[in-house]
Amino acid sequence: MMKQQPELQEYFQGVLPRVEACISEQLDSLNSYIFPVASHVLGSGGKRLRPLLCILVAGAMGHREESVYPLASALELVHSATLLHDDILDNAELRRGARAAHLVFGMKETILAGDALLAQANQIVSGYGNADLVSCISQAISSTVSGEIQEIQKMRQTNLSQAEYLDIIKGKTGYLIQSSCESGAILAGNRSAERKVSRILGLNLGVAFQLVDDALDYSPAPELGKPMGGDLREGKLTMPLIHFLQELDSGQRERFLARVKDKALSEEEMESTMHRIRSRELHIRAREEAETYLRTAHEALESLPESREKSLLARMLEYIRFREY
Amino acid sequence: MMKQQPELQEYFQGVLPRVEACISEQLDSLNSYIFPVASHVLGSGGKRLRPLLCILVAGAMGHREESVYPLASALELVHSATLLHDDILDNAELRRGARAAHLVFGMKETILAGDALLAQANQIVSGYGNADLVSCISQAISSTVSGEIQEIQKMRQTNLSQAEYLDIIKGKTGYLIQSSCESGAILAGNRSAERKVSRILGLNLGVAFQLVDDALDYSPAPELGKPMGGDLREGKLTMPLIHFLQELDSGQRERFLARVKDKALSEEEMESTMHRIRSRELHIRAREEAETYLRTAHEALESLPESREKSLLARMLEYIRFREY
Repeated sequence: MMKQQPELQEYFQGVLPRVEACISEQLDSLNSYIFPVASHVLGSGGKRLRPLLCILVAGAMGHREESVYPLASALELVHSATLLHDDILDNAELRRGARAAHLVFGMKETILAGDALLAQANQIVSGYGNADLVSCISQAISSTVSGEIQEIQKMRQTNLSQAEYLDIIKGKTGYLIQSSCESGAILAGNRSAERKVSRILGLNLGVAFQLVDDALDYSPAPELGKPMGGDLREGKLTMPLIHFLQELDSGQRERFLARVKDKALSEEEMESTMHRIRSRELHIRAREEAETYLRTAHEALESLPESREKSLLARMLEYIRFREY
Repeated sequence: MMKQQPELQEYFQGVLPRVEACISEQLDSLNSYIFPVASHVLGSGGKRLRPLLCILVAGAMGHREESVYPLASALELVHSATLLHDDILDNAELRRGARAAHLVFGMKETILAGDALLAQANQIVSGYGNADLVSCISQAISSTVSGEIQEIQKMRQTNLSQAEYLDIIKGKTGYLIQSSCESGAILAGNRSAERKVSRILGLNLGVAFQLVDDALDYSPAPELGKPMGGDLREGKLTMPLIHFLQELDSGQRERFLARVKDKALSEEEMESTMHRIRSRELHIRAREEAETYLRTAHEALESLPESREKSLLARMLEYIRFREY
């Protein structure tokens, strides 16, 4: 990833081994019963976006010490825990191109692995002896769970609005990314103006990241690891499909959506839906929506003093904007 | 409960309304999707043992302020969250005489309600701004999850020893009760000698509580809410049954245990097993084992200065010792 951003890639290659070492150490401390489940999700090619953001924001605010790494890896543990439970809730078959953990290892194992990763992340964070840090991560976990609940509730509606969908992705993705940035700011000195900047940066970057992710699933270029049209195949309602549904009349919409959710579309129907979304450029509309969020994130970033990390965070926003897979 | 201990019952009736008010407030803040699940488990007649212990230990160490109540209620939220996930893992049909939540509300709802209650408990605890408190509860959650994992792993063995079973109940029950006591000590001033006392008191009380619970399930007196022999019916391996298995030869043991776990015993087989356990007084042996733990708990308690709460904690140990239902 990030090949379009060589400066970012170089930095990433420098910090990644230390993030991975921390994650491995955490994995090694897990019971043998859940170790394979946790390894499966943590070793499946995640982008380590949350750790990287935490490290970059801490650095941009003057904290460049080794002590950031356990915190950064705890954020990846939280993210992985939510993926494990979320895939059970969604009856998902695939995760990052591999079979979802609950199908490989069983449901009990996957529930417990999620619980254990969350508990471990909380323990790492509490080890910093900083109540604000704990509170920041606790809130993010609460918000992520609420986002998952909201998704299950709202996804039953046939007329989900864009605003409602944006609320769901704030909950499911945005708040943990917000906390990834904010926790870096807390570690770097906990100054309230900087915390505010980090929150705006993180939440807006997170929403944009998800919208681009949604768009890529309907983009013509084949992606790595993720089969094109995977969201449609998995019955997932994302922004391009919401735009598509809004062009149908209410009867059509209800029938079509029911079949999407039951994963009952034929290959032909899927292809024609993909084709219509592309020809009407509905996926590009999702990317345009992402740009609004990226601009807000960029403005927040501008208020920080110049630093290597600030410039890398700007590259990160560009990476998201132009991401092709 | 606690009718045999009028002094304890009177105290309990004084503090219980405030514990319940705190729990209700927490419930009300939950999303409507998981509110019924959380209400089901939190309103099903739990003994509020963990909140009560936290309040009593804090009091015995000089802290008698209202600020203990959110912490006390958080412990009940953690306990309830583990019950929700645990019943899914065990395929349990009953919990406190009512149908288990996952059978009433569905598995997704129950996983999410457990996640949300844990997240909420963490948020309450982090609100105290006390890193030691957070660390204490985080560790308890980690240990409880490890206990559940160990249970699933070890319960497959046909020759589970008493020592291994005791390790499992330490994990599943003991450490959260230990933390209920220790968190009271932390709130009361965080003196290391008192924390140590509270840990010994809590862990030993917790293990004794579970052993007596195990014994009661095989006792002749009918219990309230819990059908007699429920553990055997649910395929649960507890101390009286472990003693029973040890009297069989290895072939018999393996065949019998497989049928217990498959819930395949006939009514006649269950009755004859109950009868053999009772006539050989194997359930009473479990109570005798509990007494060793109660003595250790009592010795720890003795080191505290005299106070109303110290005397009530001694009553609590007696209540567990003589509990009949």
